[in-house]
Amino acid sequence: MAELTLYSYWRSSAAYRVRIALNLKGLAYQQVAVHLVKDGGEQLAPAYQQMNPQGLLPLLVDHVCGRETKIAQSLAIIEYLDEVFPVPSLLPTEPALRAQVRALALHIACDVHPLNNLRVLKYLSTELGVADDAKTQWYQHWVHSGLKAVEQGLAVFDGKLSLGQRPGYLEACLTPQVYNARRFNCDLDAYPRILAMTARCEALEAFKQAAPEVQPDAT
Amino acid sequence: MAELTLYSYWRSSAAYRVRIALNLKGLAYQQVAVHLVKDGGEQLAPAYQQMNPQGLLPLLVDHVCGRETKIAQSLAIIEYLDEVFPVPSLLPTEPALRAQVRALALHIACDVHPLNNLRVLKYLSTELGVADDAKTQWYQHWVHSGLKAVEQGLAVFDGKLSLGQRPGYLEACLTPQVYNARRFNCDLDAYPRILAMTARCEALEAFKQAAPEVQPDAT
Repeated sequence: MAELTLYSYWRSSAAYRVRIALNLKGLAYQQVAVHLVKDGGEQLAPAYQQMNPQGLLPLLVDHVCGRETKIAQSLAIIEYLDEVFPVPSLLPTEPALRAQVRALALHIACDVHPLNNLRVLKYLSTELGVADDAKTQWYQHWVHSGLKAVEQGLAVFDGKLSLGQRPGYLEACLTPQVYNARRFNCDLDAYPRILAMTARCEALEAFKQAAPEVQPDAT
Repeated sequence: MAELTLYSYWRSSAAYRVRIALNLKGLAYQQVAVHLVKDGGEQLAPAYQQMNPQGLLPLLVDHVCGRETKIAQSLAIIEYLDEVFPVPSLLPTEPALRAQVRALALHIACDVHPLNNLRVLKYLSTELGVADDAKTQWYQHWVHSGLKAVEQGLAVFDGKLSLGQRPGYLEACLTPQVYNARRFNCDLDAYPRILAMTARCEALEAFKQAAPEVQPDAT
């Protein structure tokens, strides 16, 4: 049995972040698919909720010395991986720079992604009766509002990746968000720094192997 | 001039988190009020956006050796404070426990708070024409969905605070969320662990002095 097990769904962009982080660290892991749509969402089934009461993906299970450590929330998982498997690091060394990385990643993880999550889009349709085109506008509104700020924030890296020549925590959050934005037809031309950073990452094996379409549960 | 400046709004629960963290560390700071409602929101004015393109509160400015480090996102600020001013710590020492704290804090910061943020409630009203009672239901739905999971997650602390006898990162996120939930009349009786933890914290000076009502800009 693998030491690390990731409960994941191919299109979950939070799970995608963790797959990138695991690959960047060269960590082997077993993947268990949790289908976010089938049967009203397997993440809401008792078997999964017992492991992760948050009812969201991803969940990492670290099997250490016969004990199981279960960790919810993609950013908590990435911080854990960086603490337990520190080489290669995913965060810069200097506190001020670590803070810039976290602030950009958190802007994506708090202020863009949760608003456009499947469960929220579903609530908009079913509970509030929001029509499809208004829902698309909602989606694009939060993407653009977030990416505009991230574009400005990336200036601090001066055309480099967040770890100089290497990607890390920041790119693990940014690339899945760009993937989502493209999926929902957001025009990204106004974000040259984001596009350049993402293009560099998408060419790397760690990112290629984390991409939604190549996951075992992709349909 | 103070070494630390916090751009804050008395009722911003993200700013409230950072005020708690600063107080727990015994750090002096200067507070600058950014009014989230007046004139369409001072956080959207060019003067503030230039400092923080995310256009959200809080923002911490650390004046170190004549240089200014500007940090957005409450959780990035708390991580920074814990790295730069490590005593007293806000996170447990053990990685698995640090991960549990972060996972609970992130569930609040990602999956509850941003959905109920002022800018989102405003979008629901003005762009989607959502009526007040449906908006209240939306608010309470995400609060209950989040707090239910947090209540279960707190079991790991076995009736203690996240640092044993001391509060830290977790309580800095939980207490403002409970404050918000009460403000919007959410019934919290189903969450005894949350209520007990919050009650212990609210009796402490660090939390009392961070409370919205005692801030200089409170009205």
